[in-house]
Amino acid sequence: MTLSDENLNIAVIGYGYWGPNLVRNFAELDGARMHSVADLDETALEKVSRRYPTVQTTTDALALIHHPDIHAVAIATPVSTHFDLAMAALKAGKHVWLEKPMAETAEQARALVAEADARGLILHVDHTFLYTGPVQKMRELVQTSALGDPLYYDSTRVNLGLFQRDVNVISDLAVHDFSILDYVFDMQPTAVSASGINHYPGTPENLAFITLFYETGFIAHVNVSWLAPVKVRKILIGGTEKMITFDELEPSEKLKIYDKGVSFTDDPEQIHEMRVGYRVGDMWAPKVANIEALRNGTEHFRDCILTGKKSISDGRFGLRMVEAIEAATHSMQSRGATVQLPSYEDA
Amino acid sequence: MTLSDENLNIAVIGYGYWGPNLVRNFAELDGARMHSVADLDETALEKVSRRYPTVQTTTDALALIHHPDIHAVAIATPVSTHFDLAMAALKAGKHVWLEKPMAETAEQARALVAEADARGLILHVDHTFLYTGPVQKMRELVQTSALGDPLYYDSTRVNLGLFQRDVNVISDLAVHDFSILDYVFDMQPTAVSASGINHYPGTPENLAFITLFYETGFIAHVNVSWLAPVKVRKILIGGTEKMITFDELEPSEKLKIYDKGVSFTDDPEQIHEMRVGYRVGDMWAPKVANIEALRNGTEHFRDCILTGKKSISDGRFGLRMVEAIEAATHSMQSRGATVQLPSYEDA
Amino acid sequence: MTLSDENLNIAVIGYGYWGPNLVRNFAELDGARMHSVADLDETALEKVSRRYPTVQTTTDALALIHHPDIHAVAIATPVSTHFDLAMAALKAGKHVWLEKPMAETAEQARALVAEADARGLILHVDHTFLYTGPVQKMRELVQTSALGDPLYYDSTRVNLGLFQRDVNVISDLAVHDFSILDYVFDMQPTAVSASGINHYPGTPENLAFITLFYETGFIAHVNVSWLAPVKVRKILIGGTEKMITFDELEPSEKLKIYDKGVSFTDDPEQIHEMRVGYRVGDMWAPKVANIEALRNGTEHFRDCILTGKKSISDGRFGLRMVEAIEAATHSMQSRGATVQLPSYEDA
Amino acid sequence: MTLSDENLNIAVIGYGYWGPNLVRNFAELDGARMHSVADLDETALEKVSRRYPTVQTTTDALALIHHPDIHAVAIATPVSTHFDLAMAALKAGKHVWLEKPMAETAEQARALVAEADARGLILHVDHTFLYTGPVQKMRELVQTSALGDPLYYDSTRVNLGLFQRDVNVISDLAVHDFSILDYVFDMQPTAVSASGINHYPGTPENLAFITLFYETGFIAHVNVSWLAPVKVRKILIGGTEKMITFDELEPSEKLKIYDKGVSFTDDPEQIHEMRVGYRVGDMWAPKVANIEALRNGTEHFRDCILTGKKSISDGRFGLRMVEAIEAATHSMQSRGATVQLPSYEDA
Repeated sequence: MTLSDENLNIAVIGYGYWGPNLVRNFAELDGARMHSVADLDETALEKVSRRYPTVQTTTDALALIHHPDIHAVAIATPVSTHFDLAMAALKAGKHVWLEKPMAETAEQARALVAEADARGLILHVDHTFLYTGPVQKMRELVQTSALGDPLYYDSTRVNLGLFQRDVNVISDLAVHDFSILDYVFDMQPTAVSASGINHYPGTPENLAFITLFYETGFIAHVNVSWLAPVKVRKILIGGTEKMITFDELEPSEKLKIYDKGVSFTDDPEQIHEMRVGYRVGDMWAPKVANIEALRNGTEHFRDCILTGKKSISDGRFGLRMVEAIEAATHSMQSRGATVQLPSYEDA
Repeated sequence: MTLSDENLNIAVIGYGYWGPNLVRNFAELDGARMHSVADLDETALEKVSRRYPTVQTTTDALALIHHPDIHAVAIATPVSTHFDLAMAALKAGKHVWLEKPMAETAEQARALVAEADARGLILHVDHTFLYTGPVQKMRELVQTSALGDPLYYDSTRVNLGLFQRDVNVISDLAVHDFSILDYVFDMQPTAVSASGINHYPGTPENLAFITLFYETGFIAHVNVSWLAPVKVRKILIGGTEKMITFDELEPSEKLKIYDKGVSFTDDPEQIHEMRVGYRVGDMWAPKVANIEALRNGTEHFRDCILTGKKSISDGRFGLRMVEAIEAATHSMQSRGATVQLPSYEDA
Repeated sequence: MTLSDENLNIAVIGYGYWGPNLVRNFAELDGARMHSVADLDETALEKVSRRYPTVQTTTDALALIHHPDIHAVAIATPVSTHFDLAMAALKAGKHVWLEKPMAETAEQARALVAEADARGLILHVDHTFLYTGPVQKMRELVQTSALGDPLYYDSTRVNLGLFQRDVNVISDLAVHDFSILDYVFDMQPTAVSASGINHYPGTPENLAFITLFYETGFIAHVNVSWLAPVKVRKILIGGTEKMITFDELEPSEKLKIYDKGVSFTDDPEQIHEMRVGYRVGDMWAPKVANIEALRNGTEHFRDCILTGKKSISDGRFGLRMVEAIEAATHSMQSRGATVQLPSYEDA
Repeated sequence: MTLSDENLNIAVIGYGYWGPNLVRNFAELDGARMHSVADLDETALEKVSRRYPTVQTTTDALALIHHPDIHAVAIATPVSTHFDLAMAALKAGKHVWLEKPMAETAEQARALVAEADARGLILHVDHTFLYTGPVQKMRELVQTSALGDPLYYDSTRVNLGLFQRDVNVISDLAVHDFSILDYVFDMQPTAVSASGINHYPGTPENLAFITLFYETGFIAHVNVSWLAPVKVRKILIGGTEKMITFDELEPSEKLKIYDKGVSFTDDPEQIHEMRVGYRVGDMWAPKVANIEALRNGTEHFRDCILTGKKSISDGRFGLRMVEAIEAATHSMQSRGATVQLPSYEDA
């Protein structure tokens, strides 16, 4: 199977909530061909056929995984099935696109990373926020030191949301912040303390408050809930030079950069008095690219396959996310007890 | 010293940031007389004389505490001086109004409570929020069960604020939420987990995230910071029947009550599927009394002295606040480790 | 042609900006069948065929108008073609759905009304806002006298919008307010004063300010623009008992009802001093039905055809809108000079 | 009377709503001395004495006007008394500060201007907005051509406001916009069309909509009301290069500058199609000076007296405002009929 002159043939497994977005984007992707869709639900497959008459459909995901014409498989099924399907696809020599979180456990995630490495296949995890204009702008502001030294990240991500059956609110919502933090700051947390609760016995935790600690003194906090009367999607970032607010729900200026900060007198004679100076300057809302994240993501996935370069949100990235979810959940279940996170030499 | 026919004579110690508000309110309080003000700063005292020619001034707080005409002493000095001044005033037989937090340590607070009890004196701690219209309305909604079973309290209280020298951001800002929680819900937290940081070595912690755990499954979270680019003062409260938002900075409708919630099917056959129903109804913003909190507070203090009834924010209330600050600070300094709170039989 | 047992066959002429919404809604409408679509653009017709394989397509609108199986024709073409197409359809005995404004001139509109009347056909003009939850709620508040006596209506409807080639901003945007006013208050303005400008020579007016006068002393004002840096869609309504704000862009509470007002002392002795009392009470945001307006509208059109009842936005309603546009445009072109509006006995 | 070495002695007539602000600012003004206050109400004068023991008080305004030690008189009385008091002060050789509007009629205003000119005295009208940071920033953006060619000004200034007895809402609120327009754009309107109403017979008009026309094609619109359920203070300004929003009630970023606009193809072949291009770029909220307008204004008044330079809001400026109020009121009373404004050669 070579990809020289022909199109990249893509199969999508799972046509529930997110699958249709994948199919639409892969169908519109230059240099790729939406080849087939698998789902256990015949009604879902009928929808596919009606909308995309040339796309093949099947209820047998494995048949599709082993189909010789297919080069890449995108998996948008419940988390509990991610490992088996992704492992089968990798073993069948397919590049894999996996919805987040990539697996139920870090152990599973590590096995997938190893398998993809061994076979030289692309393993891409769909941490969508990395492919949005505002997050890329934030990364630019941090990486060019415009922000100064990073001081804190503080996110509120709450609404009256669909309670999940198989994953808690950390895995559903806080993972977005974990991915933004990793990508924007290029730093790994060393420890986590989380608290949260499931208000309805037998269901996963529906609200959680997570603090991530970093070696530099940078600190991150994430507040997530499925039980808020209003929808909030707000991030505050503080640096020594600038501060940022990102409000996803703001119709026009989502990203605002404040020339505000605090400066301390180092004068030892004044140390007793702790003189603090405030700096208040202009605010600036840059125009930010407004392309659909999934379009950027699918193009990136295609480019990685064609050129062999590593995906920004590759298996290792996805693994770090699963480890953060695991650690935060563990801390939450012991009422905030500090849980250490693994260190990464190559992060 | 009797208070039958004459006015209640009030002395204020400390004419810095908050003292002028106390003097103004006591000066306007029916049935009371602003008798004298003490401050170490002569310039401050000159301001008093110019504005209130009949009020006596002195740099000697103790002289004032022992003045035979004075019935009550209000203390608005730095926290580190609260204990000595308040204890001296109680021992001199004066009723005491203390700014928050009432003392540096729970031990000190307990000693003040004991002294006031032994002498039958009013010890009132100025937890101002209890005396505002919106907080009283919230208490009413909770105590009349309009809210249903309380599920959570989630507060964000951040801004680019004055860094304090002697107290951390928990003692400065989170204490407001501790007091609102105690008053509105009439429940005591059993444990606390907090995280936070001082970004500038040698200064107190300037941001903190605190979770309070309660026996009933109710959970409270408080996010406080002196280092945010924008000012936020928002509280979300969730109950099984209603949800509330309180935005202190909203010009008109600060308090909103949502007829929103979640209902679960108890049908055992559906337990596997976890069917959740959402209820979305009207929103209602009640007209809320807009009297200055300090006016309500000083009237309450006067009435307690005249009738002997307990202050809503009496020494015991203030003690619980100090204990919460201590426990939260302790947890914060061990990165979120759960700290148990004392239990109160008579709370 | 009877409609007893069979489906109502609908044809849509024009598949540009709005046509696809009509086709989608008629396709989903119970008791109706999307029969055929006409457009001059073959590419547009191909889109129809791909999405609705059973719908017939043609570039010949007249052939479709005369097709014996078709009962009703919906016209979504440029305004300049409305009259000819609608007149042909009525003469062919078809019920007609016309996009707004129904015609270029009041004369044309009157001729269409007469033709529909003479033939007993339904002539429905798509003034969409009448079929939205918030506007229906406003009508209810006015018609049940909850608002008290209506005092004023004040609307701002501006954005950086697509400049139209064939119609000015009054015809494009202010017409929405004219229709809401007519429907909600059931009153006809007696005169209009408007001002506005075309900033780019040779183009229609791109901003306009229109005042409508009513016999009762009620007054309405509409501010429309295609040249504003931010999008605004806000209506204020004042009554003697209540006041209303409607903000279409607000994510959750679009409609707010204020228990606010002004009361005057009638005491003749005080007439010199003009004592005004303010009433400030609760605010209330009712839950409002969130069904797509076009769904409500197409159901209403079907019901009118089947039962013979008059459409809420029938030809006479559409005629009044065209007359208001004409009068406002006329006043605008003479810098605000008052223009009288025709009176309606049966309005 | 010379002002060489001594202080400028100021008298204030009228200690009602605005007078206390004048007295406070003149009392704090370097190089000036708050000399005396006149008011008919003895209680008001007692307040003055208590707060400013060195300031003389009197119920006799004329005695004060003729007092030989007084160099300048500030008049903050009802509009109906402005002319007599100001004329008397000028005739007594005093510099005059007049609250807005400077007189009831343009004729009176012209007489005051002539008198001040003849005597070489400063006649300053308190159009406060000219002395605020945001308005000065707007002027800078317009005068440096950063805005490009000015296209429109659109202001909404409404609230549930105190009904005035002696002046209508144009004189009370729209005059602020007239003054901002004059100062920021340095252009005079040539005509005005206004509409409005008094909802309560026997009272002045309580809402009004005013359009000002300019020779260049620039157009201005002002919407003012004392009868709105919410307070709004918003100005939109459009230019060919930039657009501006000014929201006085926004807590932090009041002034926002948008790099947004419209560009037309001039290609004659495309004139039929009217191709419009939209430009959407960054938004920028400059830090704006936050000094009290009255402080700036009183300093400017003092400097004008000491140096002989013309006040920015001198008698001629104030006269133009009165003429605009007169013309707008006249148009309003004939339901929008265009009223021409006088032309100014030296404007």
